[in-house]
Amino acid sequence: MIRDVIAAMTAYTLELREAEVKLNQNESPFDLPRPLKDEILARVAERPWNIYPDFESMALRGALARAYGYESENVLVGNGSNELLAATIGAFVGPDTPVVFPKPTFSLYEKLITVAGGRTIPIAVDPRSGILPLDAMLTAVAREPNAVVIVCSPNNPTGGVLPPGGVDAFLASGATVLFDRAYGDFARDTLPPLHDRLVTFSTFSKAWGLAGTRVGWLASTAATCRQIRKVKLPYSLNIISEAIAATVLQHRELRDANVAATIAERERVYAAMESIAGVTPYPSLANFISFTSRIAAKPLFEAVFARGILIRDVSAAVSNALRVSIGSRLENDRFLEAIREAMNEEGPK
Amino acid sequence: MIRDVIAAMTAYTLELREAEVKLNQNESPFDLPRPLKDEILARVAERPWNIYPDFESMALRGALARAYGYESENVLVGNGSNELLAATIGAFVGPDTPVVFPKPTFSLYEKLITVAGGRTIPIAVDPRSGILPLDAMLTAVAREPNAVVIVCSPNNPTGGVLPPGGVDAFLASGATVLFDRAYGDFARDTLPPLHDRLVTFSTFSKAWGLAGTRVGWLASTAATCRQIRKVKLPYSLNIISEAIAATVLQHRELRDANVAATIAERERVYAAMESIAGVTPYPSLANFISFTSRIAAKPLFEAVFARGILIRDVSAAVSNALRVSIGSRLENDRFLEAIREAMNEEGPK
Repeated sequence: MIRDVIAAMTAYTLELREAEVKLNQNESPFDLPRPLKDEILARVAERPWNIYPDFESMALRGALARAYGYESENVLVGNGSNELLAATIGAFVGPDTPVVFPKPTFSLYEKLITVAGGRTIPIAVDPRSGILPLDAMLTAVAREPNAVVIVCSPNNPTGGVLPPGGVDAFLASGATVLFDRAYGDFARDTLPPLHDRLVTFSTFSKAWGLAGTRVGWLASTAATCRQIRKVKLPYSLNIISEAIAATVLQHRELRDANVAATIAERERVYAAMESIAGVTPYPSLANFISFTSRIAAKPLFEAVFARGILIRDVSAAVSNALRVSIGSRLENDRFLEAIREAMNEEGPK
Repeated sequence: MIRDVIAAMTAYTLELREAEVKLNQNESPFDLPRPLKDEILARVAERPWNIYPDFESMALRGALARAYGYESENVLVGNGSNELLAATIGAFVGPDTPVVFPKPTFSLYEKLITVAGGRTIPIAVDPRSGILPLDAMLTAVAREPNAVVIVCSPNNPTGGVLPPGGVDAFLASGATVLFDRAYGDFARDTLPPLHDRLVTFSTFSKAWGLAGTRVGWLASTAATCRQIRKVKLPYSLNIISEAIAATVLQHRELRDANVAATIAERERVYAAMESIAGVTPYPSLANFISFTSRIAAKPLFEAVFARGILIRDVSAAVSNALRVSIGSRLENDRFLEAIREAMNEEGPK
């Protein structure tokens, strides 16, 4: 009785392993300072848990609007940007709607398009260049009136961004653009101007270091937000996560320090990886680096894991590639040491 | 560019008003004891917030499996039962799938079916009987091979349950059954045996008094859970809500006391409403009572609100009806006083 398209789908999976150093999910290495956590939780304890969240999530939407120069009506918040992506795809993608996206990219998009019955039009990314294939995507869009375009910039797992002017070019071609800037802070991006056919997705999971709380938000025109709001589930953001996100917006210096440290470490780790014989890192403007090596991905993953470091095997998406998240300086050093040893173990090239 | 079916949809709405006594959302009147809240939050503060939730939510799924006599593989947890309903409808309902459901019922079902492109087959409920229309629904199912049936029992807003044997009759007819027992504890229900074509939905929002934390769960066979898991978003339950739900499962006496108090108050409020001239309460096995009166719904809603009591105008669903949640004894007395005054104000019948 399950729909055929669902029965044929594979599940979103994660290699479940414990390790001393966890660099597999592009998480921030920095937790909130304990006094700030305690301050938020003291307020959360006072709040009745038996009462539903504010129907309109005004506290967080207002805080985001102030922080990013919008009106509240331009912002929707949800249970991670995943939920908002799903709702937005539900609003724009129906049976046979053409959806153009780079491949490889965040694998959830293709699953959501499939659930919605849309037609997937993947455009190949060359992971070596680190640039999203704007021209090829525009060619695809030109062939498909009313296409929806999904772009993750910087792209996961390849690390490259959409070339400048890309969003405008898609909009000029008549496409609807879903622009996921989950990693945008690490590329020091700016949010594009609002447009009825443009929805930008942001998250507190990466630069803000709040992956455990599951908070995301989107920005678009009021008219488009009203339509997406019809599909989004009511009360999808719990009172505690909402309080946490609204509070950290008053401490943007925490995010800025997190971003600066991660960018500096990304540059250091990239340079160090380039100096390891047989390892080829891909350029990245995100908080991770994908790379290949003269060793096959799987044994290299295992050799690094044997040294206490859990990274991500992305070889199903990018030929022979692994991906390492940028952690703290200490974690990154542990990773660099592990990969140097693993490469040496295999003998000189 | 928005899909036609979405543009034509109305939004899920809530009358946003502040009142001294809030009896409009079927919330529990009882918050968790403060020492228990503090105990949970002390553990939450220790946990890193920058790390994603456990990919498989094993702590809560295991606790639910132990509490309800399942295996973990029979349980999925999510961001309120709404999210799990949406994922399950995504797994079973595609373009033109026939979906049979009572009407009126929880309005979200129809919206989710519409987003999925399914064909809605509403079967009228007589609110006076308090019984869901099993025979008429079975007749509809017999005409539609491969139908999906959605039942909320007790039903919101009418309060009645599915007659005994109803789930088995639907399953015997070949239908897939999505059984929402959000209010089931107040009817002292039991969960039906597992079946590949049966999914039961439960929530922590009502009997457990945790509406603010947004936690729901579903039960089915392992095979069906695996399929729904493909559609459900990853990491949809944040670390804090998961910790709260897993902890309260060790304090089932709190839920039991909540349920016993609510049932006793429901019976008391129902009897009191029956004694008010011109008021007709509908039988209910849930934590609310819908009712009509010789006054039109809207002015009666306003007259009760003018006395500090916020209830729900459900007249769009049930002709001329309002719905009041069962609150604490004090809150219920305030409501009864308000409605008596409002009815008197209108003069003797």
